[in-house]
Amino acid sequence: MPGISDKGQRMPASPIRKLVPFAEKALKAGRKVHHLNIGQPDIHTPEVVLEKMRNLDLKVVEYSHSAGFSTYREGLANYYNSVGIGLDASEIIITTGGSEALLMGMLSCLNPGDEVIIPEPFYANYNGFAVAVGVNVVPIPTSIESGFALPPIEAFEARITDRTKAILICNPGNPTGVLYRNEELETLRNLVLQHDLFLFADEVYREFCYDGLDHHSIMNLEGLEQHAILVDSVSKRYSMCGARVGAIASHNREVMDTVLKFAQARLSPPTFGQIAGEAALETPTSYFEEVIEEYVERRDTLVDGLNQIEGVVCPKPTGAFYAMAELPVDSSEKFCQWILESFELNNTTVMMAPASGFYSDPEQGKRQVRLAYVLEKAFLQEAVAILDAALKAYPGRHVATSSEVAAH
Amino acid sequence: MPGISDKGQRMPASPIRKLVPFAEKALKAGRKVHHLNIGQPDIHTPEVVLEKMRNLDLKVVEYSHSAGFSTYREGLANYYNSVGIGLDASEIIITTGGSEALLMGMLSCLNPGDEVIIPEPFYANYNGFAVAVGVNVVPIPTSIESGFALPPIEAFEARITDRTKAILICNPGNPTGVLYRNEELETLRNLVLQHDLFLFADEVYREFCYDGLDHHSIMNLEGLEQHAILVDSVSKRYSMCGARVGAIASHNREVMDTVLKFAQARLSPPTFGQIAGEAALETPTSYFEEVIEEYVERRDTLVDGLNQIEGVVCPKPTGAFYAMAELPVDSSEKFCQWILESFELNNTTVMMAPASGFYSDPEQGKRQVRLAYVLEKAFLQEAVAILDAALKAYPGRHVATSSEVAAH
Repeated sequence: MPGISDKGQRMPASPIRKLVPFAEKALKAGRKVHHLNIGQPDIHTPEVVLEKMRNLDLKVVEYSHSAGFSTYREGLANYYNSVGIGLDASEIIITTGGSEALLMGMLSCLNPGDEVIIPEPFYANYNGFAVAVGVNVVPIPTSIESGFALPPIEAFEARITDRTKAILICNPGNPTGVLYRNEELETLRNLVLQHDLFLFADEVYREFCYDGLDHHSIMNLEGLEQHAILVDSVSKRYSMCGARVGAIASHNREVMDTVLKFAQARLSPPTFGQIAGEAALETPTSYFEEVIEEYVERRDTLVDGLNQIEGVVCPKPTGAFYAMAELPVDSSEKFCQWILESFELNNTTVMMAPASGFYSDPEQGKRQVRLAYVLEKAFLQEAVAILDAALKAYPGRHVATSSEVAAH
Repeated sequence: MPGISDKGQRMPASPIRKLVPFAEKALKAGRKVHHLNIGQPDIHTPEVVLEKMRNLDLKVVEYSHSAGFSTYREGLANYYNSVGIGLDASEIIITTGGSEALLMGMLSCLNPGDEVIIPEPFYANYNGFAVAVGVNVVPIPTSIESGFALPPIEAFEARITDRTKAILICNPGNPTGVLYRNEELETLRNLVLQHDLFLFADEVYREFCYDGLDHHSIMNLEGLEQHAILVDSVSKRYSMCGARVGAIASHNREVMDTVLKFAQARLSPPTFGQIAGEAALETPTSYFEEVIEEYVERRDTLVDGLNQIEGVVCPKPTGAFYAMAELPVDSSEKFCQWILESFELNNTTVMMAPASGFYSDPEQGKRQVRLAYVLEKAFLQEAVAILDAALKAYPGRHVATSSEVAAH
């Protein structure tokens, strides 16, 4: 029997989904499970999108152009202009989700063995794409104490080798909820120019910025036109994760010509999803106002609640819809499994993502969990109460000593 | 400015789409263009699919399971059983088109530098996926004189090295329309077992078999359970190329577990497309009967017509909806461009795919074109008349000598 590939062996299983069997068991046992483990919001997809789909008048579900429908690319260019990002339709290629945007961007720009520097904790699937493309992730630690702020530029400098080809950031950040300030991005810009690197930015949470803070795109960093590559998606913006429609954009013509060749090999992005994405461009501003207000309330409910639990540390994120919390436990992996298997309050329990999957060194996130505040407030309140009680009952309770905190 | 990757440079541009600018010019000049260059049928998507989409009642367009909706996987297993292929839902992963199925299959089974043997001419994008994964395609020539039949097994033997890891076939074939006989597949089976290789089969044209011939799947080759990997798609079966929904299936558990890890990294296949694919399972048998009858008439119209033109050789295909034709020209690439730029009959011209893109050595297909008979008969008749007149007028007309034919 022929063996599988080396990449297949190295490929990580999803850390977000690996507790699924325990959640299924809890459900089978008649328990309710609050899913804070995955960024699948309960927010409704805009009505303009669903209305459009119900009124489809096509007879043949055809391929589109490999770069996407030209009307959609033009519409997207208008959208970017409306949020202050100057892009022409010819500088945008529609992809199958942000996932494919990043995969094709990496394939176009990086050779096997090249290094890409990523502040950690980072979105777990970056590891997967790095394995698929054969590049090495060089993590650069950030700390929960500083709210996962961008590390000082010297920390980046110290990791640059002759194989470094790119830096990848997620802004606002998954899993941290961190929103980078413009000054932070400007220091990155200088470094990228100095070392002639690509700068990839996953900006799929662009709309989700709170407390009056603004989002700053790498596409607006002066002098970075040939280096900046934008990864985007409609998944979170319009709560339509299943559409699998995203985009890659760059002013670098050579990069976009190369991405197009990879795009041609897979023929076209999904037609239904593109129709939905184009319709979503007509989403009224009031939709976002309501959604953002809702997320702020959810964030405050969850984060304020968590910080009132003894031994829990949870910095308040200013973007996206995730929070990272340090728990008073021996291992968040064990705790997340235990709470699904052995704990309930009013016959309800909570599913979380152990943070170790978001670190390249699993020891780093050993006591942390990622929580997605994508459920309504009443459920989040219940989840906080369940966590409070569970942490008191958990046999592996462990409050970090100050030396452990310092070592971290 | 940082440079693009080596793979990005090696990545081929689509040979099917590279004449598009000339077609656009012809259209701008007010000409009509019959598109025989691409397998985008004009056949209507089944009404059950369009009806389903018009009655969508979801409120949130959510992710599905990374392997696809379980109801759809079960429905697909029933479909396979109905066409005589024994597969369980757990042995099927839904993908974003056949393209992603092949890409994830290759990533899971092949290491960079491994060799995959493919009878040529072959579907041009196999080259693209091979570049993306870093594997080497080892072509094995077939001839237009034999109707592109599977080469003798000795020809495969002669190409096996210690880097050979897989054989890839397309059955029924794109671009050749060849349908392999069961005995041919059985000789392949023996070879695959003897050398412990993977056998990938792209069977997306399964339904399109003519002249009373049956399709034989590699999934039914005894003893090949751990070696056979099926690549499939709904694109052609239900004329919904834009759904971007396919599947990969194998009895090899290790392969499927590995594919699932790659599937998790990109989260899920398209939700709308899966809903459409699941609805398509209810397509009435009469739909296929009508479609196949239509394709047979189209094939006969095109192929019989072509063979009546002096100097044209076009074997009659027994599957899929493509025909390969040898033309009396110096270069099919030049001819295909010339006919778009400089020829019209009743203000109409024809777009074809030069066959060189389907060969690893472009010299091989130098005088051949691929024609997709995906348009209604009246247009195909017009296309034949245009080709007849164009070949008489073409300045580069060149009838192959018998020694040129023999060398070929």
